[in-house]
Amino acid sequence: MSKIFNFCAGPAMLPTAVMEKAQAEFCNWQGLGVSVMEVSHRSPEYIAMAAEAEQDLRDLLAIPENYKVLFCHGGGRGQFAAVPLNLLGDKLEADYLLTGQWSKSAVVEAKKHARITETDIMTTTIDGKVTVKPTTEWPINAGAAYLHYCPNETIEGIEIFDLPETGVVPLVADMSSTILSRPIDVSKFGIIYAGAQKNIGPSGLSIVIVREDLIGYARKAIPSIFDYEVQAKADSMFNTPPTYAWYLAGLVFKWLKEQGGLVAVEKNNIAKAALLYNFIDGSNFYSNNVDNSVRSRMNIPFNLADDSLNDTFLSEAKAAGLLTLKGHKLVGGMRASIYNAMPIEGVQALVEFMNSFEKKHA
Amino acid sequence: MSKIFNFCAGPAMLPTAVMEKAQAEFCNWQGLGVSVMEVSHRSPEYIAMAAEAEQDLRDLLAIPENYKVLFCHGGGRGQFAAVPLNLLGDKLEADYLLTGQWSKSAVVEAKKHARITETDIMTTTIDGKVTVKPTTEWPINAGAAYLHYCPNETIEGIEIFDLPETGVVPLVADMSSTILSRPIDVSKFGIIYAGAQKNIGPSGLSIVIVREDLIGYARKAIPSIFDYEVQAKADSMFNTPPTYAWYLAGLVFKWLKEQGGLVAVEKNNIAKAALLYNFIDGSNFYSNNVDNSVRSRMNIPFNLADDSLNDTFLSEAKAAGLLTLKGHKLVGGMRASIYNAMPIEGVQALVEFMNSFEKKHA
Repeated sequence: MSKIFNFCAGPAMLPTAVMEKAQAEFCNWQGLGVSVMEVSHRSPEYIAMAAEAEQDLRDLLAIPENYKVLFCHGGGRGQFAAVPLNLLGDKLEADYLLTGQWSKSAVVEAKKHARITETDIMTTTIDGKVTVKPTTEWPINAGAAYLHYCPNETIEGIEIFDLPETGVVPLVADMSSTILSRPIDVSKFGIIYAGAQKNIGPSGLSIVIVREDLIGYARKAIPSIFDYEVQAKADSMFNTPPTYAWYLAGLVFKWLKEQGGLVAVEKNNIAKAALLYNFIDGSNFYSNNVDNSVRSRMNIPFNLADDSLNDTFLSEAKAAGLLTLKGHKLVGGMRASIYNAMPIEGVQALVEFMNSFEKKHA
Repeated sequence: MSKIFNFCAGPAMLPTAVMEKAQAEFCNWQGLGVSVMEVSHRSPEYIAMAAEAEQDLRDLLAIPENYKVLFCHGGGRGQFAAVPLNLLGDKLEADYLLTGQWSKSAVVEAKKHARITETDIMTTTIDGKVTVKPTTEWPINAGAAYLHYCPNETIEGIEIFDLPETGVVPLVADMSSTILSRPIDVSKFGIIYAGAQKNIGPSGLSIVIVREDLIGYARKAIPSIFDYEVQAKADSMFNTPPTYAWYLAGLVFKWLKEQGGLVAVEKNNIAKAALLYNFIDGSNFYSNNVDNSVRSRMNIPFNLADDSLNDTFLSEAKAAGLLTLKGHKLVGGMRASIYNAMPIEGVQALVEFMNSFEKKHA
């Protein structure tokens, strides 16, 4: 079998160097004779590692000092509930922008707690491509407790690169599938949250970056493990955190620094995405229906000209070591998720395979 | 350095055989060329593994068919919130029994949602030992939505082996630190829940065993990831579960079966606990203040006759490869947590060390 490249949308591949280091020290971490997953989260060794992981994340994203970083249980969907329960306070309404399945799922959860104004900001270009309205046309409602959006929709392959000006309304972003893929101006956000299982580490961990002045307004009914104030005071250790996931996230942050930080990572991500999009655009056999301006660099959905070839495509791809290319069931077709950990060689291998598949079957 | 034995209360040591297997297949699970933490939770391979883990747990605990088994995010403290949010329905009150720090912490969370009647069931024997009132004296309030208790308190070292008759009132148990250490009659319980990081796997996972007729009454404000109905319908995959922790739990379940199941495991746990308690009771230098009838087999706190020797004890123990014996800060002294994964050789090594320490310093 050739080298394996795993295009899973999440849980996604992790950097090979990270996995090899984790494997080597799996049963003997820091020479303690035990695994990092077997030590107390209150031990000096674990606390030092956890703090270093946070600092590395702060360095990577240039997180301002007036933001807390929390390492939480519950994944991204846990934060779908935690955000309204923390931010609504005595307000009754919040605004959600819709760009795909993930932003829609966040709305469902928020509606349990507030009156939600949903605004579909999707539109189509004159060429019939899917796009997103410019940020200047986004509705800003001063009465809303916050404005929520999802800058990268994994299923539709839509990514929003512009940042809106929301004034006093805190901007909340579900960055599960785009965090750490490029520099961002954290100071523009009230809250950034992300499930770990794309660009951070294994599933079961979520990271929350929250502006300090937004902490302290949680509704009474909030489970304490989701209360930003409780977890901020406890350095994310109000309860035992997902210690192994936190450790792996720390290894990923170190690896990102070794790559040259997010400027270098973005450059690589742009090159990877361009390679695949350019190939698709130059082909009459493959297609992607998203406008250039909002094409995701992380998740690239595409269709074959003949859907009846889908199964053949997937089985031949798997035989070539190219795994998990099936598109989400809601949209069908194919999808290549190419997060930070995917090397450009993986995208090259995919393009070569797609090219030869086209020649064989078109 | 001699062989390492890790007495951490949690995250605790995992079986050596499990850790070695996990390390060996860390980067290449089932020959897929990728880690189990890098595959989709929707993949056939992962779903098969997850189902097998559940079945193994069902076999080990003889879980009746009218109980659902859920693999959840959020740890034990997550369930402190999930239990009232799922079970209260339109009832307003629930009863909690107090036996130590963990049952008290559960009450704090439940009070956010219901009127809680707390009953301290601790008492002392004529010898001045700490004990628990017999189950026949526990208050059963037919108006309560449920009765909650914690059968093993890790900090105080108290374990309750008897089962109360609660009639129509569902009995809810936080079994985080005793689950899988002995057979239990699941049919006596409405809900059993457990954070994983003692006898199941790494932190970040909790397991919920819930009688089906109790599902479907969640309060509207519940985060969906904690809603038993939502997770039961989705086979615990409403959101991406903590996939790696689930996998490791599955390996632990297989290992428990290989040990001969819970009858054999209990026998071993009885022998391990007896070895340490008998040594302590035969010494004038060490003491444990819990009555025989409720002494924990999992967490054995003890004190030295001279507290000023505590630091010396801990440093000499560490040098001898006996880790994490410091007692919880709330009670001081020492604590040896000897969950399923601790081999009897570890307890023997501890007793030998304690014996020589006594001879040297008494």
